[in-house]
Amino acid sequence: MQHKLLLTSLFLGSALLSYGQDDKLDMTMIQKIRTEGLEHSQVMETAFYLTDVNGPRLQGPGFIKAANWAKTKLTSWGIQNSRLEAWGEWGQGWGVEHSYLAMTAPYYKTIIAVPRAWSGSTNKLQSADILYISSTDTTALESYRSKLKNKVILLDQSFKGMPSFKADADRFTDEELTKMANETPPAQRAGNDTTFRSRIMAMRTQNAFNQKMRKLAKQEGAIGMLNTTQNSKDGTLFVSGDYANAAIGATPDDLADLSIAVEDYMTLCRLMKAGIPVKLELDVKTKFYKDDTKGYNVLAEIPGTDPKLKDEVVMLGAHLDSWHAATGATDNAAGSSVMMEAMRILNTIGAKPKRTIRIALWSGEEQGLHGSKNYVTNHLVDKATNKLTKEGENIAAYFNVDNGTGKIRGIYLQGNLAAGPIFQQWLKPFNDLGATTITPANTGGTDHQSFDRVGLPGFQFIQDKIEYNTRTHHTNMDTYDHLQPDDLKQAATVVASFVYNAAMRDQKIPRKAVAAQVAR
Amino acid sequence: MQHKLLLTSLFLGSALLSYGQDDKLDMTMIQKIRTEGLEHSQVMETAFYLTDVNGPRLQGPGFIKAANWAKTKLTSWGIQNSRLEAWGEWGQGWGVEHSYLAMTAPYYKTIIAVPRAWSGSTNKLQSADILYISSTDTTALESYRSKLKNKVILLDQSFKGMPSFKADADRFTDEELTKMANETPPAQRAGNDTTFRSRIMAMRTQNAFNQKMRKLAKQEGAIGMLNTTQNSKDGTLFVSGDYANAAIGATPDDLADLSIAVEDYMTLCRLMKAGIPVKLELDVKTKFYKDDTKGYNVLAEIPGTDPKLKDEVVMLGAHLDSWHAATGATDNAAGSSVMMEAMRILNTIGAKPKRTIRIALWSGEEQGLHGSKNYVTNHLVDKATNKLTKEGENIAAYFNVDNGTGKIRGIYLQGNLAAGPIFQQWLKPFNDLGATTITPANTGGTDHQSFDRVGLPGFQFIQDKIEYNTRTHHTNMDTYDHLQPDDLKQAATVVASFVYNAAMRDQKIPRKAVAAQVAR
Repeated sequence: MQHKLLLTSLFLGSALLSYGQDDKLDMTMIQKIRTEGLEHSQVMETAFYLTDVNGPRLQGPGFIKAANWAKTKLTSWGIQNSRLEAWGEWGQGWGVEHSYLAMTAPYYKTIIAVPRAWSGSTNKLQSADILYISSTDTTALESYRSKLKNKVILLDQSFKGMPSFKADADRFTDEELTKMANETPPAQRAGNDTTFRSRIMAMRTQNAFNQKMRKLAKQEGAIGMLNTTQNSKDGTLFVSGDYANAAIGATPDDLADLSIAVEDYMTLCRLMKAGIPVKLELDVKTKFYKDDTKGYNVLAEIPGTDPKLKDEVVMLGAHLDSWHAATGATDNAAGSSVMMEAMRILNTIGAKPKRTIRIALWSGEEQGLHGSKNYVTNHLVDKATNKLTKEGENIAAYFNVDNGTGKIRGIYLQGNLAAGPIFQQWLKPFNDLGATTITPANTGGTDHQSFDRVGLPGFQFIQDKIEYNTRTHHTNMDTYDHLQPDDLKQAATVVASFVYNAAMRDQKIPRKAVAAQVAR
Repeated sequence: MQHKLLLTSLFLGSALLSYGQDDKLDMTMIQKIRTEGLEHSQVMETAFYLTDVNGPRLQGPGFIKAANWAKTKLTSWGIQNSRLEAWGEWGQGWGVEHSYLAMTAPYYKTIIAVPRAWSGSTNKLQSADILYISSTDTTALESYRSKLKNKVILLDQSFKGMPSFKADADRFTDEELTKMANETPPAQRAGNDTTFRSRIMAMRTQNAFNQKMRKLAKQEGAIGMLNTTQNSKDGTLFVSGDYANAAIGATPDDLADLSIAVEDYMTLCRLMKAGIPVKLELDVKTKFYKDDTKGYNVLAEIPGTDPKLKDEVVMLGAHLDSWHAATGATDNAAGSSVMMEAMRILNTIGAKPKRTIRIALWSGEEQGLHGSKNYVTNHLVDKATNKLTKEGENIAAYFNVDNGTGKIRGIYLQGNLAAGPIFQQWLKPFNDLGATTITPANTGGTDHQSFDRVGLPGFQFIQDKIEYNTRTHHTNMDTYDHLQPDDLKQAATVVASFVYNAAMRDQKIPRKAVAAQVAR
């Protein structure tokens, strides 16, 4: 069911197509971008090094290793000023050095388990009984205090196993894209999402309970705690971590915090409920890194060539950091590889952009968009006046990719309606590759928001979902094999063209009619 | 998308419906079966004990534990003569006592791994390099001889990661069922399946290579070998084992034979191909059991009450043994629980069948239908004359369930066309529950074949597939959570009714027009 990329050339009567009053698309350059991006792609080789070779890119050493590789790779392609730039203090790095969990009674079974990020250690192979906690009432928790020593904590859950009668992977249908194109701009929408609010409230209650339990568990000498999620299935685990533990000065503790397969979790719950004696054994060794507590972004440029415009900057970015249960292939080696590839394409075809083109590979995105937020704060906003700096004013546009491995189907305007007609024209040469849709809507959860919130034109592309929500996003299955090569080639080609157009356009991309308040 | 079971009663004008010349269905009893089976089911409790509580039921100790539980459970329900019966010599039992595999360079990653059945041990935590073998040519294998010591063997594979654009689970559509109903009877079909033959040939070549490699690996002191399958994905592994190693007198070896996740396997292949140094660590301890090398079936009865017919026997069966990577929930705790539940239903509603009803829970099915084959050989066929014994002649019918957790949609006739109209009538009271289809076709791979091959009327039911081929059949995910409670209740209800009808019918179920040769 995968759409096949059309590798045929675009034969158009004129090399300069004029769509609007100031947008003359250089079709010769766009054809060169297509040929380089679709027929001579290196995007999968880049992705291989960022995933299989580098390993997880959790904020800390895993990220730093990948960042240095990316810096060197960009330089090797001829991209200029490739560098790591510190954005401020972050916290302790962390990694797994050994991880093993099994049930040893009523019979032996290895359990699919991943320590949550910044989990502590058991320090040795430990045998343990389970303390089964059926209440999520923080007051009732106190009654378990005397029972915690040397136990592994298992919270009662009653997730129902559900076979997938719906495919894990999908692409946007024409109907869905039309619906997105016709969405009400965000400024005109009611802001009262009670479902979202009540979900956030439930999450906060659960987190408060977990924090309290964790504290009690540590005080009383528990060995570990297990958790799982309802959407975990078939060996796919959703795993993130408690980054409060990354705080500078925090003491690594002797409590292993493990995400396990939902099937194993439910087996343990059923056995405990039925009163069947259960024994576990576990051996978890994690390491905290305190030698460099700063956060870094990777930056590099293709310098602008127009004396009047070269100080203006078109930025393209993606976060390079990842969670740690796999190698962050779709979140976000995919976006990072696409952005690096877009730079490679432009450089290889000898693009001489009027404006400077700057790639940013962010870090700390998973813990709160730290890399991009701090870049904006450090460079683009004046702290004293809370207004854009000269450097900030010079940002022509920011483009982001961080929605997995799917090809580009269009772009989110984030309510910036004036950009719509421009992007509609820019998408035309890629309509045949499935990129067609302009939606006025917002999308959130990633680094274009750091620009958008200070009134700069920051955009994220619409991508086919593939298995993002079902199998890869923050899971132990976010690996190279879940990447779709043809989709990534298409994405890099579309991005390269957008960035080039933005760098050549007479004007910067318009900013929102009512500029957002510059915020910190 | 799950069909909801209709729990409404069947209100029919008469309690005795006459469909054919000698089939008077006792609708009062069928209604009792429905009520007990659908509204007071214990099938999931039985499944819980066979899976979560018992663990894997691999031929050997895991099976024996479950067999004893089933024997006791049947007795507790009032089923008579519940017993384990030895069917002959089998071989050594086997189980895992410890299993751990991780990559430690270029970075640390626990690998999802399951020792294949009858795998040897590493005896301790070992650190090892990979020997990457790119050829599957048995002659070329010799060139690796000197490189095997202390290595873990990885055979080159080039499986392509593929997202699931098709749902893992499905049910038969009306069109599919109609097509099955209209299939040509097997006797009239051409027997020249070249695709199947070439697949078998390819499998034999691969097996011969593996056997040779394994022998060489043991001789030269390799530590382990890794394997995976193309259909493995998302943490779901397909795992069986080399039961040649179960042979009595075979010596357990120091070679760990591990199935691993395809994502991990392909990462290792790509790293080796790229020349990136890779280190593994592994610790596998398995145990061989030699104290009882015999195979057993579980048998139990509801005795017949008609003096003329009580020596005749209606049998229902399912294999109770499983592979070991999970708890064999759909293969075949499902079928075993359904058959036990059918017995419980009949006993609970006070059924007094004319013929004796006998349940058989087979063993050694996964290694070649051993339990059922030997039962037939030991009881139903005279070795001297190669004809059915008196006991064999007295078998009225055999019904089998072994196609996973899906509800019953009909029955395979195995070419026994005369049984068609009878079963069509018997399905009528369950048409509302989705059981409608009679297919003349054969289905294979399970225990009804042991009866069919000696000319006895042995049948397997058609079941909805759910996730059988994608997620559960011989996988590490064949667990309780992948069972569908409503489907299993329906199946037990339909089976109980079929068995009761067969026990009450004036005549035994007709045998094939041209009786199959009695074979050994």
